[in-house]
Amino acid sequence: MALLVQKFGGTSVGSVDRIENVADKVCKFRDEGHDLVIVVSAMSGETNRLTGLAKEVMEHPTPREMDVLLSTGEQVTIALLTMALHKRGYDARSYLGTQVRILTDDSHTKARILDIDNQRIHEDLKAGCIVVVAGFQGVDEHGNITTLGRGGSDTTGVALAAALQADECQIYTDVDGVYTTDPRIVDSARRLESITFEEMLEMASLGSKVLQIRAVEFAGKYNVPLRVLSTFEDGPGTLIRIEEDENMEAPVVSGIAFNRDEAKLTVTGVPDIPGVASKILKPISDANIEVDMIVQNVGEDNLTDFTFTVHRNEFKKAYAILERLAQELSAQTVKGDDKIAKVSIVGVGMRSHAGVASKMFEALSQEGINIQMISTSEIKISVVIDEKYLELAVRSLHSAFELQKEAVE
Amino acid sequence: MALLVQKFGGTSVGSVDRIENVADKVCKFRDEGHDLVIVVSAMSGETNRLTGLAKEVMEHPTPREMDVLLSTGEQVTIALLTMALHKRGYDARSYLGTQVRILTDDSHTKARILDIDNQRIHEDLKAGCIVVVAGFQGVDEHGNITTLGRGGSDTTGVALAAALQADECQIYTDVDGVYTTDPRIVDSARRLESITFEEMLEMASLGSKVLQIRAVEFAGKYNVPLRVLSTFEDGPGTLIRIEEDENMEAPVVSGIAFNRDEAKLTVTGVPDIPGVASKILKPISDANIEVDMIVQNVGEDNLTDFTFTVHRNEFKKAYAILERLAQELSAQTVKGDDKIAKVSIVGVGMRSHAGVASKMFEALSQEGINIQMISTSEIKISVVIDEKYLELAVRSLHSAFELQKEAVE
Repeated sequence: MALLVQKFGGTSVGSVDRIENVADKVCKFRDEGHDLVIVVSAMSGETNRLTGLAKEVMEHPTPREMDVLLSTGEQVTIALLTMALHKRGYDARSYLGTQVRILTDDSHTKARILDIDNQRIHEDLKAGCIVVVAGFQGVDEHGNITTLGRGGSDTTGVALAAALQADECQIYTDVDGVYTTDPRIVDSARRLESITFEEMLEMASLGSKVLQIRAVEFAGKYNVPLRVLSTFEDGPGTLIRIEEDENMEAPVVSGIAFNRDEAKLTVTGVPDIPGVASKILKPISDANIEVDMIVQNVGEDNLTDFTFTVHRNEFKKAYAILERLAQELSAQTVKGDDKIAKVSIVGVGMRSHAGVASKMFEALSQEGINIQMISTSEIKISVVIDEKYLELAVRSLHSAFELQKEAVE
Repeated sequence: MALLVQKFGGTSVGSVDRIENVADKVCKFRDEGHDLVIVVSAMSGETNRLTGLAKEVMEHPTPREMDVLLSTGEQVTIALLTMALHKRGYDARSYLGTQVRILTDDSHTKARILDIDNQRIHEDLKAGCIVVVAGFQGVDEHGNITTLGRGGSDTTGVALAAALQADECQIYTDVDGVYTTDPRIVDSARRLESITFEEMLEMASLGSKVLQIRAVEFAGKYNVPLRVLSTFEDGPGTLIRIEEDENMEAPVVSGIAFNRDEAKLTVTGVPDIPGVASKILKPISDANIEVDMIVQNVGEDNLTDFTFTVHRNEFKKAYAILERLAQELSAQTVKGDDKIAKVSIVGVGMRSHAGVASKMFEALSQEGINIQMISTSEIKISVVIDEKYLELAVRSLHSAFELQKEAVE
């Protein structure tokens, strides 16, 4: 018997039928004797509907009122799920963020959780009650409703698990776990039994959008065991754990992540003097464009080439800024390419293994794939390649690192 | 410059366009220098949508969770209206029932207001802010969301006006005031400049559904000047006032109300002994059927006829109960008629004027309309007639009491 926090996202509660399905699932866990705190999102589509109404009224809706509006989404779901549990004869009780209470700062639409009062929930659990909590929302110290930003329900789940010292925080989604890579690209992609928080962060930030980065960070920080499972199928899912796998046979590389949403920009022939990087990036960041990879090569004649990637949606905007900037920088040319893809291998094992990078580059070279940019971190190596080679690159890397093989666990 | 509480119902805020229209109206009042507290209902259709979702989950949804669900309706409206005010450059702030706070008892789905904290609202008003409050909802002493039942937004408006000692509570609807009778039936029906609370209560309970009875009672009790106006047209509306009009020329009869939703049931030949009325009505009330008019005639041979009316929807159910009961009561027959209508003349003036009843009966008799039941109160005389004569009866009474004529005011 454990204390479990189970979070069900918008797709999992997207209709009354699906809410009934979640209720069945929850009751099964309750029958096994577990204490349960259920966190739910708004029914899928609802947040967009509400945002649409607000946009009809004004282009940039006031954040405080936006939170009043959006927080109704989860409020509907907690009521319906709690009713569904009552119908099945289970004791259950719904709570809004303000009722728990989940105290946040006052940054409306992107608030941070400061504190959670766990008293009422503990009392309810003690009395055998299933507690249903609205995800995504909190309350500031003045009683104003706040929301945590998109995907904030995962964060609510993790924060509640931390506050209640739950045995596990289970995030139910429409996939049955974290895979070595996207099964739609690689047939032999395999569900991972477990993955470390660091790996999960890299996988998530690289486009394997199973979990919100913020929730993973939060879970890592507060040492909350996190599990990703499917709402629609039974199965153990993937456990996201704190410590590295101590097994000798643990894989060096855990997974292959990729991202087709980026575009590349290069300023060539820039005088290689201090401050040039910031001169290029300042106007980009001033325009609220986020930069991902940055590579600078030392060139000849004290000239350097400076390359970085941005989200593909921001490509044109960034390009225009650089063109305006080129003369000021005495740069030779501005080049851009939005037909690129980023492929990364991720694994805590690579920290202690030399040769991972060369194995990666070799695998790509054997397929004739040219590497345009390289960027590395402790547990990840990313390359930028021509978009058309993306699937080929992922498949060759998946096979080169033998990810299809079950790890000896 | 006055402190006004203005309440806009579901039809008035039924779309973003209509919310914009309300915002225009509110800003105009603000420009005139008034302090404003705006109470809004859920957008029309929203409460039905939410109720539908709940009914999909369970036949009789848990009241506490029903309140969590339904209270989202007004929450959406306050956010959108406040945004619309911001767009127009006005300072405005939305409040939920829990935030005001509007303290109620814990009778979920039909809670009663116990107390209103007016401090935050007073502070906002002082700072020049328009305050937008969610109607229909409150919070119990344990922080649970409660709702006041259908039409509860009128009650919220009146209660806030009482708590804030507002100069007037204005209820905006889709009609421009209270009429001498339904203009769809009588062309010459006239908007009343004013009406007393007692008259309004009788008019409202008799089917002129302009205001919720409960709100009118509340306003009368706390001496809140109440005005009914149109959201869609300009005009003074109808003032609902405490005191009788002291003008000598004040009309004896203020209006003609009617109701086609009733059905009549008669038990004939019941032994006229003490307790027979309760024996007949107890099983009806035990079945949760509300009874409106009750008439008992002393008959011959110590037998009596007992007649009462119920809502037409309950007719068959009530009829079946009486049939089961007839033998036990040694009654002769059970008769029923659901093709009836109730027509009433209402006016505080009739208290001091003899001859009002006979004038009414005479007017009906001249049209050959047979009166099936009569019931009177201090300020009202109601008759039950054949449904097919309803329009004729209303028109003849409207003309007999000269209601088309403007009162000398």
